[in-house]
Amino acid sequence: SAVQLLNLNPMYLAKYAHTYKKFGFDSQWLIVLYREWASYSNFYKYQPISLIRKYFGEKIGLYFAWLGLYTQMLIFAAIVGVLVFLYGCITVDDDIPSMEICDKRNNITMCPLCDKSCSYWKLTMACGTARASHLFDSTATVLFSIFMALWAAMFMESWKRRQMRLNYMWDLTNFEEEEVSNEYFAALHAKAAKLTWRDRMPAYMTFIFLMTFAILFGVIIYRVTTQASLQMSSMPSIRANVRLTVKSTAVIINVVVILILDEVYSKIARWLTILEVPKTDKSFEQRLILKTFILKFLNAFSPIFYIAFIRGKTANTASSYGVLFKQSFSPQCAHTGCLMELCIQLSITMLGKQLIQNNLFEIGIPKLKKLIRRIKTKRAPVQEEQDDKDLKRYEADFFLEPFVSLNPEYMEMIIQFGFVTLFVASFPLAPLFALLNNVIEIRLDAKKFVAELRRPVAARAKDIGIWYNLLRGISKAAIIVNAFVIAFTSDFIPRLVYQYGYSPDGTMHGFINHTLSYFNVSHFQAETHPLQPLHLGYKVEVCRYKDYRMAPWSFNPYDISKVYWAILAGRLAFVIIFQNVVMLLSDFVDWVIPDIPKEIITRIYEEKMQMVEFFMREEHSLYSMPMLDNQDENRPTPQLRRS
Amino acid sequence: SAVQLLNLNPMYLAKYAHTYKKFGFDSQWLIVLYREWASYSNFYKYQPISLIRKYFGEKIGLYFAWLGLYTQMLIFAAIVGVLVFLYGCITVDDDIPSMEICDKRNNITMCPLCDKSCSYWKLTMACGTARASHLFDSTATVLFSIFMALWAAMFMESWKRRQMRLNYMWDLTNFEEEEVSNEYFAALHAKAAKLTWRDRMPAYMTFIFLMTFAILFGVIIYRVTTQASLQMSSMPSIRANVRLTVKSTAVIINVVVILILDEVYSKIARWLTILEVPKTDKSFEQRLILKTFILKFLNAFSPIFYIAFIRGKTANTASSYGVLFKQSFSPQCAHTGCLMELCIQLSITMLGKQLIQNNLFEIGIPKLKKLIRRIKTKRAPVQEEQDDKDLKRYEADFFLEPFVSLNPEYMEMIIQFGFVTLFVASFPLAPLFALLNNVIEIRLDAKKFVAELRRPVAARAKDIGIWYNLLRGISKAAIIVNAFVIAFTSDFIPRLVYQYGYSPDGTMHGFINHTLSYFNVSHFQAETHPLQPLHLGYKVEVCRYKDYRMAPWSFNPYDISKVYWAILAGRLAFVIIFQNVVMLLSDFVDWVIPDIPKEIITRIYEEKMQMVEFFMREEHSLYSMPMLDNQDENRPTPQLRRS
Repeated sequence: SAVQLLNLNPMYLAKYAHTYKKFGFDSQWLIVLYREWASYSNFYKYQPISLIRKYFGEKIGLYFAWLGLYTQMLIFAAIVGVLVFLYGCITVDDDIPSMEICDKRNNITMCPLCDKSCSYWKLTMACGTARASHLFDSTATVLFSIFMALWAAMFMESWKRRQMRLNYMWDLTNFEEEEVSNEYFAALHAKAAKLTWRDRMPAYMTFIFLMTFAILFGVIIYRVTTQASLQMSSMPSIRANVRLTVKSTAVIINVVVILILDEVYSKIARWLTILEVPKTDKSFEQRLILKTFILKFLNAFSPIFYIAFIRGKTANTASSYGVLFKQSFSPQCAHTGCLMELCIQLSITMLGKQLIQNNLFEIGIPKLKKLIRRIKTKRAPVQEEQDDKDLKRYEADFFLEPFVSLNPEYMEMIIQFGFVTLFVASFPLAPLFALLNNVIEIRLDAKKFVAELRRPVAARAKDIGIWYNLLRGISKAAIIVNAFVIAFTSDFIPRLVYQYGYSPDGTMHGFINHTLSYFNVSHFQAETHPLQPLHLGYKVEVCRYKDYRMAPWSFNPYDISKVYWAILAGRLAFVIIFQNVVMLLSDFVDWVIPDIPKEIITRIYEEKMQMVEFFMREEHSLYSMPMLDNQDENRPTPQLRRS
Repeated sequence: SAVQLLNLNPMYLAKYAHTYKKFGFDSQWLIVLYREWASYSNFYKYQPISLIRKYFGEKIGLYFAWLGLYTQMLIFAAIVGVLVFLYGCITVDDDIPSMEICDKRNNITMCPLCDKSCSYWKLTMACGTARASHLFDSTATVLFSIFMALWAAMFMESWKRRQMRLNYMWDLTNFEEEEVSNEYFAALHAKAAKLTWRDRMPAYMTFIFLMTFAILFGVIIYRVTTQASLQMSSMPSIRANVRLTVKSTAVIINVVVILILDEVYSKIARWLTILEVPKTDKSFEQRLILKTFILKFLNAFSPIFYIAFIRGKTANTASSYGVLFKQSFSPQCAHTGCLMELCIQLSITMLGKQLIQNNLFEIGIPKLKKLIRRIKTKRAPVQEEQDDKDLKRYEADFFLEPFVSLNPEYMEMIIQFGFVTLFVASFPLAPLFALLNNVIEIRLDAKKFVAELRRPVAARAKDIGIWYNLLRGISKAAIIVNAFVIAFTSDFIPRLVYQYGYSPDGTMHGFINHTLSYFNVSHFQAETHPLQPLHLGYKVEVCRYKDYRMAPWSFNPYDISKVYWAILAGRLAFVIIFQNVVMLLSDFVDWVIPDIPKEIITRIYEEKMQMVEFFMREEHSLYSMPMLDNQDENRPTPQLRRS
């Protein structure tokens, strides 16, 4: 019983049983689960996985085992992430580039960041962002990215082992899932005789269109909101502290749009999967999960990818200064690269998604639905409590939400895993946020399963299925994404190249000056002149902008300089080295940690031997019994396959 | 019997039996194997794998099944390789760069290729090599590299499926290998009580030293031989056609050294593995294989890696022209990149290794050993034949070589797989050579097993073990190596960059001129002047060399130019794109092809169900028999694990 399973005092049940009178047949399990698992005060304890499996079945047991292991592994990642952040905090005063930006003696006049409405500005204005950037963009970040890639590999391996151990404990080693054909779809198949690839074409085409839409819409929403906030914040009438509010508001609007679209995409994915008419329930689920995942992933990450890899790059190669560059307004990141913006976007999206989806959607909506259900039955709320006591278990259960599927829970976690691994180079605190969320999430889900939902039909499962492949895909993608973030979004490579290739004294002094090109104000195109050229109080003749281009007085003015190509080569070389080294290390981790724990192999082998021995004895005792001789011919011979 | 297995005419045996009188017990199998398998005339037929397995055991059966599949898959690769080569042959006359090199009107004077003894030369002299290079370095080569990466992935997947099918056919699905502890080492372990990592330190250190030695020695041998041949061929007294002979001789010497070292390394690897005192026979074999593989791999490939990635690069970045470059002699490849040299080295090493190892070592040495054994027994050769007829089977077998292990056979094939996949971008004919070799190799090995070696003790095995991992490792490495060969050794990227970035009319016209920098002869350092400056018949003032550097009359003479960095960035970008695209495609192939054939899954499932059903019936019939009731308590209950 549950009491034995958890080594509880038998008095325990007696103590609490009277408070849960209404629970019928399974009350014993449910009371224990409610008190020992679904309570926030147990957040530091391991989950009673065997008990969860006994009550809810293997499939849900595996989900909570997986969530538990993931949360447990996040502790290491969070600690290292915080250390990396602290390293940034400690070394911020020694960072020469941000010192140079903040130094008022340098007195560098920068070119306007947009056409007309923006004006010239002093580089010292970027001091705050430069110092903040350093917190997330120190050398430790590179090491942290490598660590996180290995962490992901370790996590995958640990899960394989844990799963194998659970399989053994739950006697699933020989269990094989059967393909259950879906009645509804089977009927459709029978009608349509044979569904060819061409019949499914519309569904596929719609999906591809949707993917493009998801990417574009995410980016457009981001651009519209930031552009509005930029234009507002560039108005001189708005004070500096209000500007930050405007920017944050833009990101929050962005998050809200993402959340709304998330729900829309879920519905569309389901509709499209039905259009495809899959043959079995398993195939239906897999197709649905894959579609939903792709759409939700693009929805959550397309603005982030845009900030990391496209924004700022277009500004570099085709900025709005001068006759040579035809393009008009193109959004630019602050001086110290797009890393800070990426960081803000990541943290707000991640926090917003977690807070709103957890609290609002997971707690609020079920409660709301429950309320609606009660109202529909039109009972007076005064009578309600009395009613509850008199209700039978199945009657009380009617007011609970029906259990639909585990997929939304997994989906949420997989997207979170994406936040933790994909852009970890630009936001080392992501594992900490994820950890804090998951500690609550486990108990929240537990509460939901124990108290908010009708008891689901127990289902057997050997593994977490397609989710494992998605995790593996994300952790593979994380390696290359992080390589690109470090190489192209952060200033790591330009710094290295400057220090070892161009610095006169081998230090970082002069780096800021090296990254800025010159622009002659008289080369502005007719329409792009700043409206307030005297904003800074003096007449500007030459301003600076962040790019590696030739000076106006050189042979090829505003042409891309040699340094640009050298740094590009350096960035690309870094991507190749980083990717291959980290892949090699991940493969090494994969190879060193065996998939099946050694003790399990031995135990399975021993049991097999016992089994063989037992059958041998059985056979022997059978055939050595003379009185059975005459019946031998009626019984099938134990030769199953050819001898 | 064998006759039934192969659907042979029963008269078949009677016909041949008298010629093989001396074979005793197993003669029937052996005759069939000898005639149907170990004969060159069967080269186009599938091997009788089931028969091989019956006679030699699963382990050897798997080797020949693997070799058969590999050879079969090589057919596709060879055909595509030949097509790529033919494409090169057809388009050689349309190749603008080689036309420009061969065009005498261009009249470009090149700088000497080495100090003092070399002199100025005309670019038209490189015409032959330029045209030959094109055969192996057309656009088709890039596609062929992608094809071969996918081919390797397909091969691995096909083998997994074939292996699974054989496992099912040979009833190995439930077979598990037992760890047999080696008596000799077990005794040692008992003596040494506990062997720590520190005790094995000397063995590990020696191995690391050996690895370095293998790399360096390979490269040094290559450099010494080529340098000697270069100096000889640069003497004016030697005629042009002799030069090629000198060069080829150098490569052949190289191959002979590689072959001798191969044998030495085998011995050393065995000695080192014994030093490590592994616990079980399996662990001994795995450690031995890994060591031997690493040493032999380095031995075979270090000169090739050197040519592909180091030679020519040192010449580019620090060549011997002028005061700016301090380094003296550094070997340079011919004008059209090192690809041609790489190609020659690859083909001769591959052919040489195959011809010499196959013919000399595999046929010659066993025959020699047999002869020595006969001489040792001091029988007169006249009497021999008569003796042979009277001998019993075990007596006749004594004159055969004992079977040692399959490892040398596998090793040879794995190294060949390396030649086929690693540098396929520079030598598309490698699969063809490998195919021709393997067609012979299968029958040669068959002959050896049937007629030259004592019958090995049959061993069971489920898979080909560590060899699969080595194959996988090579095919993964092949992706990145090919990416680098295309990007850095061939002229593919410089051509692309020129065509789309610098060409005035978007064609390849002017490419050769673009790749050549200028050198003012008066800038030669004192000691490096060519000894025969008037060799071409006129006084040279400015010569050209292959590099992207500034002209002597520019602001920074001989400084690396912007084009150099742009091309470097292009090369690196190509590596990233190629590697990731090909990895993605390989993973896709891996994902699309299921590891276990569907029919086998169904059959295993059905058999399992039959088994369960059978035991159920058995149980039922047992317990339903009343006369057995009194004996039930004596028999073990069928509860093996907890209910």
